[in-house]
Amino acid sequence: MSLIVMKFGGSSVGDAERMKRVANRIADSKKNGHRCVIVVSAMGDTTDDLIDLSKQLNLSPPAREMDMLLTNGEQISMSLLSMAVNSLGIPAISFTGWQAGITTEAVHSKARISDIDPKRILSALDEGKVVIVAGFQGISSDGEVTTLGRGGSDTTAVALAAAIQADLCEIYTDVDGIYSTDPRVVKCARKLKEISYDEMLELAHLGAAVLHPRAVEYAKHYNVQLVVRSSFNHNEGTLVKGDAELEQGVVVNGIACDKNVARISILGVADQPGILASVFTALANENVNVDIIVQSGVQNGKADFSFTVDRTDADKAIQVIENIRTEVSYEELTSERDLVKISIVGAGMVSNPGVAAKMFDVISNQGISIKMVSTSEIKVSCVIHSQSMNDVIIALHTAYGLDTMEQAVVGGPQDRR
Amino acid sequence: MSLIVMKFGGSSVGDAERMKRVANRIADSKKNGHRCVIVVSAMGDTTDDLIDLSKQLNLSPPAREMDMLLTNGEQISMSLLSMAVNSLGIPAISFTGWQAGITTEAVHSKARISDIDPKRILSALDEGKVVIVAGFQGISSDGEVTTLGRGGSDTTAVALAAAIQADLCEIYTDVDGIYSTDPRVVKCARKLKEISYDEMLELAHLGAAVLHPRAVEYAKHYNVQLVVRSSFNHNEGTLVKGDAELEQGVVVNGIACDKNVARISILGVADQPGILASVFTALANENVNVDIIVQSGVQNGKADFSFTVDRTDADKAIQVIENIRTEVSYEELTSERDLVKISIVGAGMVSNPGVAAKMFDVISNQGISIKMVSTSEIKVSCVIHSQSMNDVIIALHTAYGLDTMEQAVVGGPQDRR
Repeated sequence: MSLIVMKFGGSSVGDAERMKRVANRIADSKKNGHRCVIVVSAMGDTTDDLIDLSKQLNLSPPAREMDMLLTNGEQISMSLLSMAVNSLGIPAISFTGWQAGITTEAVHSKARISDIDPKRILSALDEGKVVIVAGFQGISSDGEVTTLGRGGSDTTAVALAAAIQADLCEIYTDVDGIYSTDPRVVKCARKLKEISYDEMLELAHLGAAVLHPRAVEYAKHYNVQLVVRSSFNHNEGTLVKGDAELEQGVVVNGIACDKNVARISILGVADQPGILASVFTALANENVNVDIIVQSGVQNGKADFSFTVDRTDADKAIQVIENIRTEVSYEELTSERDLVKISIVGAGMVSNPGVAAKMFDVISNQGISIKMVSTSEIKVSCVIHSQSMNDVIIALHTAYGLDTMEQAVVGGPQDRR
Repeated sequence: MSLIVMKFGGSSVGDAERMKRVANRIADSKKNGHRCVIVVSAMGDTTDDLIDLSKQLNLSPPAREMDMLLTNGEQISMSLLSMAVNSLGIPAISFTGWQAGITTEAVHSKARISDIDPKRILSALDEGKVVIVAGFQGISSDGEVTTLGRGGSDTTAVALAAAIQADLCEIYTDVDGIYSTDPRVVKCARKLKEISYDEMLELAHLGAAVLHPRAVEYAKHYNVQLVVRSSFNHNEGTLVKGDAELEQGVVVNGIACDKNVARISILGVADQPGILASVFTALANENVNVDIIVQSGVQNGKADFSFTVDRTDADKAIQVIENIRTEVSYEELTSERDLVKISIVGAGMVSNPGVAAKMFDVISNQGISIKMVSTSEIKVSCVIHSQSMNDVIIALHTAYGLDTMEQAVVGGPQDRR
């Protein structure tokens, strides 16, 4: 008998039929003797519908009220799923974030979980109930409803799994697992059997949308074993854990692409100590996440530097920098928004020299210019113009030996969904 | 400067356009210097849509989960309305039932408010904000989300008005005020300028759907002045208060009709002490509200008795009585569901003999049989078959001098909506 957290995304509970299928899956798990805590996202388009409604009333609504609005999406799906499970003769109870004891910092729209008190969850489990928790939401210490930002339901699932010391956290989604790259771009992409937290973290940060990076960080920190699998079939998924086995001869495990990249360049900045700190503190205060930062050498006492942000944060970032011009003087502010970041990831990379050089080679052979580069022990990222994205991914997938013959023959992973 | 509670029903916030209109109305009140607490119902069909969804998953869902589901309706409308008010440059904040400090008894689907701690509301008012509270919901002392049953948002509004000692509680709805009877049935029904709590209570209990009886009880108990008015125009509404002025010569103020009546008869019950108590305790334990009770005289040691319940509770009531057959022996259980209860209400009735006799006369002159009768100091109710309902109401309206000539000439109250 195991204690399992099962998380179902919005497309898995998109309508009544799908919800019934999920309820049956939960019932099976329960009948196999497991104790189950379920985390659920809002049904299909609910969140988008609510956002559309809000836009008719206020184009820049207060973040607090937006959180108040959007949390209803998960609350609707959790109570409906609870009804569906109950209808199978299995007692189930649903909890909002605050009922589940999920405390977050007092920030709206992308709060971090600060603490979980699973008292009510554990007591309901002891009563033999399936516990269904609304993903994506929590409560701040001053009683405000908060949301965890994009992919927040994954984070809820992993954080709950850690808090109740679950044996496994299953992330049910609309794909079979983690692939070497996006199967929509590379037909012969292959599903990974296992992947390490670090590799998954890089992939997630780099735009592999299946798991949210914060969820993976949490899983790594608390050593929560994750399985990513499809809610539409019973195929084995991908196991994400601390020490994934390396496949023989595989240096690069996956290729990821973040399509939401903008570059902002501040040109002719006076080279004084503390300037960089001023800029990035101001951005952090406005909750703008900065990814790659590149500074040029100093010439005539002036320097240029560039950084990337989410494309959706670009306007905000520019405004922040314009607002601190009295403090940080510069000559020009430019931005480029039509960019993507392509990354190769692999735990084997650290002991294999030349991996990065091969990437630059593949890209430049296609006549594409690399705008920024960033590396870590297990990944290399290149920022390029978005128009060349697919060609580069396909070429890299082949160059690093990731194409699988059999799968290419049967027509790619679409068939296996 | 007054402190005002304004309650808007579901049709008043049915879509984005209506919600904007409500936001403007709130803004006007705020600009006139009032401090405003708003109570809002779910948008138009939201509640019905949620119920439909739930039925696809579970035909008899647990009441707790139903409360979890339905409370989202009000939470969606409160946050959207808050956004709409904010967009007019007026700071607004929305609160769920638990955030507003509304504690109820631990019953689902029709809980009573047990306490209100308006700390957060008052502090937001002190910050100059418009406070928007979700109607219909509260929290039990063990942290469960509860709902107040039909018309619960009216109760929320009045209870809040009492808790914060508001100067006035305005109930905005889709009609202009309280009418002498349903203007859809009697074209020349007239709008009342004032009505007393007691009369309103009788009318509300008797099926005048504009105000929920529990809300009126609350208003009477805490002496909250209520105004019922339309959210679609600026016409004066009807003031509900302790000592409404009696119009000269008017004995009956209003005629109400409850269309949701079923009669259950228990025949041949052994005449032993405590039998009635057993039956009605069992019904109360299952939350079945009993209205009129009539017992026949005892013959051969056996008695018959009949009572009315909401038609929707009839099956449940029959089951309850069948379940206690070991305890209460009877010969036969019959029911009749196609009934209505028509009532005449008026504070002047107590000092005018013959008012009831006139009612019986009007009904029997139409060849209609009266199935049950119930009276109080300010009302007389007759239960009849539903098919004669409209004829009886029209005849009574004329007989008690309630028809207004001018209004009949201009085509009835529809024109004034």
